[in-house]
Amino acid sequence: MPAPPKFLDYVDANADKFIKRLAEAVAIPSVSGDASYRKHVHEMASYLESQLKTLGAEVRSVPLGKQVLDGQEIDLPPVLLAQLGNDPKKKTILCYGHFDVQPALIGDGWDTEPFKLVIDDKTGRLIGRGSSDDKGPVLGWLNILDAHKDLGLPLPVNLKFCFEGMEESGSEGLDELIHAEVGKGKFFEGVDAVCISDNYWLNTRTPCLTYGLRGISYYKVTISGPARDLHSGVFGRTVHEPMTDLIAIMSKLVTPCGKILVPGVEDLVAPLTSEEKARYDKLDYGIADVEHSAGAQIALSDDKAAVLMGRMRYPSLSLHGIEGAFSAAGAKTVIPAKVSGKFSIRLVPDQTPANVDPLVIAYIQSEFAKLNSKNKLSIENIHGGKPWLADPNHWNYVAAIKATEAVYKQTPDLTREGGSIPVTLTFAESLGVNVLLLPMGRGDDGAHSTNEKLDRSNFIEGTKLLGTYLYEVADIKA
Amino acid sequence: MPAPPKFLDYVDANADKFIKRLAEAVAIPSVSGDASYRKHVHEMASYLESQLKTLGAEVRSVPLGKQVLDGQEIDLPPVLLAQLGNDPKKKTILCYGHFDVQPALIGDGWDTEPFKLVIDDKTGRLIGRGSSDDKGPVLGWLNILDAHKDLGLPLPVNLKFCFEGMEESGSEGLDELIHAEVGKGKFFEGVDAVCISDNYWLNTRTPCLTYGLRGISYYKVTISGPARDLHSGVFGRTVHEPMTDLIAIMSKLVTPCGKILVPGVEDLVAPLTSEEKARYDKLDYGIADVEHSAGAQIALSDDKAAVLMGRMRYPSLSLHGIEGAFSAAGAKTVIPAKVSGKFSIRLVPDQTPANVDPLVIAYIQSEFAKLNSKNKLSIENIHGGKPWLADPNHWNYVAAIKATEAVYKQTPDLTREGGSIPVTLTFAESLGVNVLLLPMGRGDDGAHSTNEKLDRSNFIEGTKLLGTYLYEVADIKA
Repeated sequence: MPAPPKFLDYVDANADKFIKRLAEAVAIPSVSGDASYRKHVHEMASYLESQLKTLGAEVRSVPLGKQVLDGQEIDLPPVLLAQLGNDPKKKTILCYGHFDVQPALIGDGWDTEPFKLVIDDKTGRLIGRGSSDDKGPVLGWLNILDAHKDLGLPLPVNLKFCFEGMEESGSEGLDELIHAEVGKGKFFEGVDAVCISDNYWLNTRTPCLTYGLRGISYYKVTISGPARDLHSGVFGRTVHEPMTDLIAIMSKLVTPCGKILVPGVEDLVAPLTSEEKARYDKLDYGIADVEHSAGAQIALSDDKAAVLMGRMRYPSLSLHGIEGAFSAAGAKTVIPAKVSGKFSIRLVPDQTPANVDPLVIAYIQSEFAKLNSKNKLSIENIHGGKPWLADPNHWNYVAAIKATEAVYKQTPDLTREGGSIPVTLTFAESLGVNVLLLPMGRGDDGAHSTNEKLDRSNFIEGTKLLGTYLYEVADIKA
Repeated sequence: MPAPPKFLDYVDANADKFIKRLAEAVAIPSVSGDASYRKHVHEMASYLESQLKTLGAEVRSVPLGKQVLDGQEIDLPPVLLAQLGNDPKKKTILCYGHFDVQPALIGDGWDTEPFKLVIDDKTGRLIGRGSSDDKGPVLGWLNILDAHKDLGLPLPVNLKFCFEGMEESGSEGLDELIHAEVGKGKFFEGVDAVCISDNYWLNTRTPCLTYGLRGISYYKVTISGPARDLHSGVFGRTVHEPMTDLIAIMSKLVTPCGKILVPGVEDLVAPLTSEEKARYDKLDYGIADVEHSAGAQIALSDDKAAVLMGRMRYPSLSLHGIEGAFSAAGAKTVIPAKVSGKFSIRLVPDQTPANVDPLVIAYIQSEFAKLNSKNKLSIENIHGGKPWLADPNHWNYVAAIKATEAVYKQTPDLTREGGSIPVTLTFAESLGVNVLLLPMGRGDDGAHSTNEKLDRSNFIEGTKLLGTYLYEVADIKA
C-alpha cells in the first residue's frame, strides 16, 4: 500500500530537524580503523542507542570483545540490535547499517572540515565524512521512527535493526554475532526479509536496487630460487630468475581484453537469460559513465551491455602487484630471490572459491611445469568469499520498485555490483531470506574519498523511499 | 724479466709492517655514500697522499667540486694523481684504485668491529671493511714503493697512480677529470698500459686476469590508463588494466632459460672463437661454484662452459621489478593506474646501448600494439654503458700471466666478468691503451658484505704479484 500522505508531508516539513541530527552524527568522528579514534566509535554507538530508545525501540548493545589495533588491545565497538513491534500479523523487516566511517583529515584534500556537516545551499549537498556512508541511510530509518512517533502512526511492519561499528574495518566479530543470534528465541527469529542501505546509484540520475554482488578469491603465487638477492651482472643468464618465471605465469592468467585464461573458470558462469540481458540494456548507465569514472577512455568494449556485464555478471581477474621485487623509483640491478605475484578473481554465480581455487592452482602448477625452471613454486589463497545473487522478482524487490516509483516517479535500475559487501551473504545464508540492497546516495557521493557528500534531496526523498518501502512490503503477497 | 729476489724477500720480511699500514687504512672509515662519513674520505685521501709522498711520489690532490648528499652540499673527495719516474726509456704503467669503502656497521651482522682490522691467525684472514675492496690492492702498490725505496732499487717502469674516493658512489666527477687530463702535457700523457686491481678471483684457488666486462642498458616501460588507481570490484573487466598490459610485455622479453626474445639483440653478439671457447673449458670454476654462490641448485644448464659464458660473454636480460603496483605484504584489490616495469640487458661486444636501444623500443612498441589496449605506453632508457673487452694476448696480459706463474706457480684463469667497472672503459677509450684487471683478492672476500676480508697470503703474494708484473712489463716486447 502507498505510504500515508501525512508521513510524506512530515518528512518534508521536518527536513531541517533530520539534517540537524545528521550533523550531530557526522560530528562524532567514528573512524573504526584508527585506535586513537575508537572512543568516538563507542560514542557514536551510545548516541545511536539513545536516539533509538527515545524513538521507542528496545535496544541491546552487544559487546564483541577485544581486538589488537595499532599495537594496543582495545574494545571492539558494540553491535546495536534494536526492535520495534512484534505483531505476528505483520511482516518483520531487518535493516542493516553501520555507524563507523573511513578516516578523514582536512589535509587529505577536503575543502571543508570533514567532521562538520556543511550544507551547501547552492548545490544542495550535505558534505561531511559519513554523510552518505553510512550515517545518512542509518538516520533515514530513525527519521521514519521519528515521523511515526510524532504522528502517532503505527509502523506498517515489525522492524529489527542491526547496526555495526566495524564495517570499514572488516566487520570484525559481526559474522559470529549473527550466527549466534539465529534460531528459536534469538534476535533474528521471524525476520521475513532484509534491507541494506549501504551502496549507491550507478549514476546521479536514476535510483537503483541491487540484487547481486561478486565474490572474490585472492591469490599469492610465490616463486623462490636463490638463497638471497643476486647481482644481475654476476648472475644474469647463469641461473633461473624467479621474476622471469613469475612474469611468465602472471602473463597467462588473463588477456588484455579481460578474458580469464584459467581453463574451466569461465565455464562456471551461469548462463545469461534474455530477461537479465534486457536489464543491462535498460540501465541508465553507459560507457561514457564508466570512462568518466575511470578518468580515461579505456573501456574494454564499445558495447554498453558488454561493459556493464563485465562489472556485474562476469568474473574479472586483476593483477595487483608483486611483493619482493624492486618497486621503488630509480634503477636497481637486482635479481630478487623470492617474488610473490598477487591477483584476484571476482567471482559470479555459479563460481565459488571452492570450485575455482582448484582450477587456478592446477593451471598455475601446469604452466610452471612447462617453464622447466629449477625454481620453486607455491600458491596461497589469501582470502575468499562467495558471490551473492538475490531474486529480483521476490516481493521484497517488488515492494522496493513500487516505493521507488512512488517517491521518484522513476522505475529503478536493477543492478548487480562488482565488489563485495560480505554481510549481505551472511544474512542471506544464515537467515535464509531475501536480501535487498536499497541505496540512498548517488554514484558521485565519494564514499571513501575526500569531500564525501549526500545530496539533501537524496536524504529527504531517501527517507520517504525507505518509509514507503515498508508500507509496500506490508500488504504485498509474500 | 723476473723480479729481483731481494724484492720478494723484502716483501716476506716486511709483511707485518704492510699489515700494520693496512690496519691504519682500514681504521679510517672512508664511506663515500654517507655525508656524515665524508670527512673520513678526505682523511683517507690525506693519509694516502702523505704515504705516497714519503715513498717518493709526486702527488697532486685534485679537488672535484661539490655534490649534494643526504640533503647537504658537501665537498667531493679529491682524486690523487701521483707519479714516480719519468724515464723515456721505460714503459709507463697507470695504476688505478679507490680509497673509499662501502658502509659497514657492527649491527649489519659483522662478527668484529668493521673498521678495526682483525688478524685471524687461525684462518690467515685480515678482516675489516675495505681490506679487499680496495685498500688492500692500493696498499699493495705502496708496499712495492716501500720495498724499492728501502732497498735502493730503481723501479723497472715509470708509475702513475690514479686513486679516487667515490668509486662506491658512482665515481662522481672522475670521468670529467680523466678526460681533462688526457693530451699533450697532461697527467695521463705517455701511459703505455693500465692496471686495475679492483676485482676478485673467480674462486678461492686460482688467480685470474680479467679482460672483459659487460655493459648495460636499463629500461623503464610505463603503461598508464586510468586517471587514478581503481577498485577492482568496480572496474575489473570493464577497462583495460595497465598491469595486464605490462605483464604481457614483460613476459615477451626473455625465456625462463635466459634467451633474449627481442629480435636482433642476440644477433649482435660477436661470434665465439675456438680460442675463447677453450678458455671457458679451462677455467677453474664450475656449476657447483655458481650454485654455491647463488645458494641454490638453479644453474641454467648442466654444461659448465654454457653457464660461464652466460655470465661472461653472452648478454642477459633481468626483470627487476615494477614501480607503481601494490608491493607490500597482504592483499589489496587495486587496479594500479600507472605501472612501470624495470629491466636491464647486460651488453657484450658488439652490442652497445646505441645499437640495442632502438631494437628494444621498436619491439616493445610492436608487442604493445598487438595487445589492442587503449592504455598508453612509454619507454625510457634510464642509463647505459658499453661493454669492455681487452686483447688478452697483449703484452700487458702476457706480463701479468708470467708474473702470476712466477709468484703463484699457477697459470691464471683468463676471465670476463658479468658486471661493469665503468672506469675501465673510460681509460681504455680515452687513453687508447690496453687495460688489465689484475685482482688481488679471492672470490669469497665478501667485498660489499659483512665480514669483508683479504687473506694474508693474498695481500703478501699479491704485493709480489703486482711488483713482479712491473718487472715482466719492463722488458717485454711492446
